[in-house]
Amino acid sequence: MIVIRDVKLLEHRGNWDILVEGNRIKRIGKNLMEKEGIDKGDVEIIDGRDMLAIPGLVNTHSHIPMTLFRGVADDIPLMEWLNNYIWKMESKLNEELVYTGTLLGAIEMIKSGTTTFNDMYFYLEGIVKGVVESGIRAVLSYGMIDLFQEERREREIKNTEKIVKRILEMNNPRVKPAIGPHAPYTCSRELLTAAHEIARRYNVPVHIHMNETLDEIRIVREKTGMRPFEYLDSIGFFKGVKVIAAHCVHLSDREMEIMEKRDVVVSHNPISNLKLGSGIAPIPELLRRDIPITLGTDGPASNNNLNLFEEVKMASLIHKGVSLDPTLVPGEISFKFATLNGGKALNLEVGVLKEGYLADIVLIDLRKPYLIPVENLKSHIVYAFKGVVDTVLIDGNVVLKDGKMVNLEEYKVYEMAERAYNKLIK
Amino acid sequence: MIVIRDVKLLEHRGNWDILVEGNRIKRIGKNLMEKEGIDKGDVEIIDGRDMLAIPGLVNTHSHIPMTLFRGVADDIPLMEWLNNYIWKMESKLNEELVYTGTLLGAIEMIKSGTTTFNDMYFYLEGIVKGVVESGIRAVLSYGMIDLFQEERREREIKNTEKIVKRILEMNNPRVKPAIGPHAPYTCSRELLTAAHEIARRYNVPVHIHMNETLDEIRIVREKTGMRPFEYLDSIGFFKGVKVIAAHCVHLSDREMEIMEKRDVVVSHNPISNLKLGSGIAPIPELLRRDIPITLGTDGPASNNNLNLFEEVKMASLIHKGVSLDPTLVPGEISFKFATLNGGKALNLEVGVLKEGYLADIVLIDLRKPYLIPVENLKSHIVYAFKGVVDTVLIDGNVVLKDGKMVNLEEYKVYEMAERAYNKLIK
Repeated sequence: MIVIRDVKLLEHRGNWDILVEGNRIKRIGKNLMEKEGIDKGDVEIIDGRDMLAIPGLVNTHSHIPMTLFRGVADDIPLMEWLNNYIWKMESKLNEELVYTGTLLGAIEMIKSGTTTFNDMYFYLEGIVKGVVESGIRAVLSYGMIDLFQEERREREIKNTEKIVKRILEMNNPRVKPAIGPHAPYTCSRELLTAAHEIARRYNVPVHIHMNETLDEIRIVREKTGMRPFEYLDSIGFFKGVKVIAAHCVHLSDREMEIMEKRDVVVSHNPISNLKLGSGIAPIPELLRRDIPITLGTDGPASNNNLNLFEEVKMASLIHKGVSLDPTLVPGEISFKFATLNGGKALNLEVGVLKEGYLADIVLIDLRKPYLIPVENLKSHIVYAFKGVVDTVLIDGNVVLKDGKMVNLEEYKVYEMAERAYNKLIK
Repeated sequence: MIVIRDVKLLEHRGNWDILVEGNRIKRIGKNLMEKEGIDKGDVEIIDGRDMLAIPGLVNTHSHIPMTLFRGVADDIPLMEWLNNYIWKMESKLNEELVYTGTLLGAIEMIKSGTTTFNDMYFYLEGIVKGVVESGIRAVLSYGMIDLFQEERREREIKNTEKIVKRILEMNNPRVKPAIGPHAPYTCSRELLTAAHEIARRYNVPVHIHMNETLDEIRIVREKTGMRPFEYLDSIGFFKGVKVIAAHCVHLSDREMEIMEKRDVVVSHNPISNLKLGSGIAPIPELLRRDIPITLGTDGPASNNNLNLFEEVKMASLIHKGVSLDPTLVPGEISFKFATLNGGKALNLEVGVLKEGYLADIVLIDLRKPYLIPVENLKSHIVYAFKGVVDTVLIDGNVVLKDGKMVNLEEYKVYEMAERAYNKLIK
C-alpha cells in the first residue's frame, strides 16, 4: 500500500490523502491513515506537502520511437520532410533501435506527466519491451499500410494478428492492443475492412489517421468519390468498434454528422498540425456537436517533444485566436481532453483521480515561480505549467520519484539513443 | 574573471570556453585558460560539460508585477477580464506589492533564460528595486495614460520625467529608462507628443501598445479619421526615436509601409494575442518587408507565464498553421526574434554570444530526455525545449547557479507573493 499524504487536488481546497492498494486508488480523504487504522510500517508514505496531485495524462496519438528523429528537419514542406529525412531513417530501423527510442520516449512522457499513450508504429516487439521495462501504460497498434498491394496487405494483417495475440497473452495490465490501419489514403478497402473485422473480433479500439491534410482528402475523393469519413462510413468501418481518429483537421459538415452518429473519438494534435502546415482542426464546432476530443503529440519529429501539457495549452489558445473569441475551449475543457476523455477513449479507468480507478497519479511540486501564487490551480495547470513533474505512479507503482526514473538508468538510455541516432543518420 | 569551460554552442560543433571579464565577454575559444595563461586561482570556473550556452533572451513587452494576478481569470471577454478582475486588483497595488511581483517575475524570467526585459507599468520605484536586487537587466517605462484629461496628463508627464531622471542618476548598467505612452486610444495627442519629446531629449526608446485589437483601431479611427500608425506618423511620433510597438496584430498595408519607413520595431506577443482572442499578427508579411521583429510575453495574467521560449516556439508554429505553409518563420528566425533582434531594439549589446558584448549568458543542461539525441541543437532550442535553465550570468555576474537563485531567497519571495495575492484579491 502507498499513501500520498497532505497533497493538493484541483477540485477541492485543502490537503488530502490518497490511499493506493494494488494498482487502484482505494480512498481519497483527509487523515486516511488514522481513519483506516493503517500502521506506518505497513505502507510506503509519499509526502505530498506543497504538491498538487493530478491524474496522469493520456496521449492518444504518438509514434514513440520517433524520439530518435527529434529535430532532424524542420520548416520544410511535408513531402520533402518525409522523402529526404523520415522515410530514409525509418528504413534503417530495427527492433533494437525502436526499443531504444521507446525507452527515451517513455522517460520523456513520464517526466512530463503522461502515464498512458496510444501509439502506432512498427517493430512492436521493441515498443512492448520498452513499455514493460519503463513502467508506463500503453495501447499499442501496428501501423498497417498496404499501398493497395495484395501481398503487402496479407503481411500487414498477419503482423497485426501476431502482435495482438502476443500482447493479450502477456496479460500485462499496462499493455493493451489496438488495430492500426494507417489511413484511408494508404490502405486499400480490403485492408480497412480486415482491420475493422479484427478490432471487432478482439473487442479492441481502432487507431487511424484521418483528414490530416487537404492533399490526402483530395486523393481519397479521387479514388472513391467520397470524403474520407463518408468513405469509411460507406464500408461500415465505424460499426461496433471504437475508432480514434487522429488529426481531423479538415472536416465537412457531412463528415462531422457521421462522426457524431458513429461515436468517433478525435485525437487533436494541434502542434504537429501547425508545424507541418496542415491546418487547424475545427475543435469549437466538434465541441458544439459533443464529439469527444482527446489530445495527442504525434511523433517528436513534428513537434518536437512529447510534452502533452503543451498540447493542452495550445488547444485552449489557438481556437480563441483564430476565431477572435477568448471564451472558446476553456482551460478546464482542454485539460479534460488530456485526462478524462483520453481514458474513456481507450476504455481504461484512468484520467481521473477517483476511488476504484487505476492508480495513475502525477505529483507536481508547486514551489515553482510560474505556479506562484499557489491559487487558481486549474488555470495554472493549463496556462502556466511547463510539464515538469516530480513524482509519478502508474498502475500503483512509483515510476518517477523526486524527478528521477525508478526503473531505468536515464543517462544510459540517453547514451543508447545517441548511438542509435548515429546509426540512423549515416 | 569567470571561465565557462567545455560548453557547447549553437553555431559551432565541439566544446568551447567563454572568458568573462567585468561585465563583458572577453574571449570565446578553445582551451582559453592555457592560451591566455590564466591561473586557476584567479578565476571562477563554471563546468560547461553537457551544457549548451546561449545568449540570454530579451523579452520586449512585459508588465512584470502582474505575476501576482496569474490565473485570476481566463477564457472570458477582454472587457469583463479588465473590469471585473485586472483593474480591480491594480487599484489596490502599491510600491511594496509591485516590488514583490517584480521579484517573483525576475526569478521566473531568469529561471527560464530571459536576462533582459522591456517593461511598462506603474509604481516604478518598486520595479527598479526588484530589478536591482534580483540581478536581472531591464528597460523600464512608466505607463502613461491620460484618457484625454489635461490634469491627468500633467501628472503622467511628471511621473515619467521623475523616474527617467532617477534611473539615469542611479547609473546602474543593468537598468535603463524608456518612455511608455500606453496606446493611441488611451493617450491624448498632447501626451503622445510630449512622450516623443521626452524620448528625444533623453535619447531613450519609446514603448507603446499598437493595434492589439480591432476595437481600439475603430476607436482611433473614429477620433482621428486615421488608423493608429497613420495617426502617429501624422504627428511626427516616429521621428528621431526608436519605437517598440507591442502587439501589431491588425495592420493595413499602408501602416506596414509606415513601419518600414520609420524603422518601427515590433514586439510580437503571440500567446497573449491568442489567449485574449485579439488575433494573429501578420509576421510573415512583416518579415518580407524586413521590419524588425522581437518577442514579448505580455503580462502573466494573459499568458500565464513569462517563459519566452514558449513565444519562440509559438512564433514559428502559428503562422505555418494559419497559412498552411510549413516553411514560414523558421526556427532560427524566431530564435533571433528573442535574442539578437531584442538586443538591437533596446540598443543594448546583448542577445548574441560575441567577444566585447555584455556577458548575459544562459547555460542549459542537455541531459534532458526532450533534448536527446544531443544533435540539431538549433532545432531543439526552439521546438523541443521547455525553458528550464541551469545557470545564468547577467552583466558578468552569476545570478542562477545549478537552478538556484544566487541573490534571492526564492521561497521567501514565494511567501511574499502569496501574502500579496491575498491582499489584492480581497
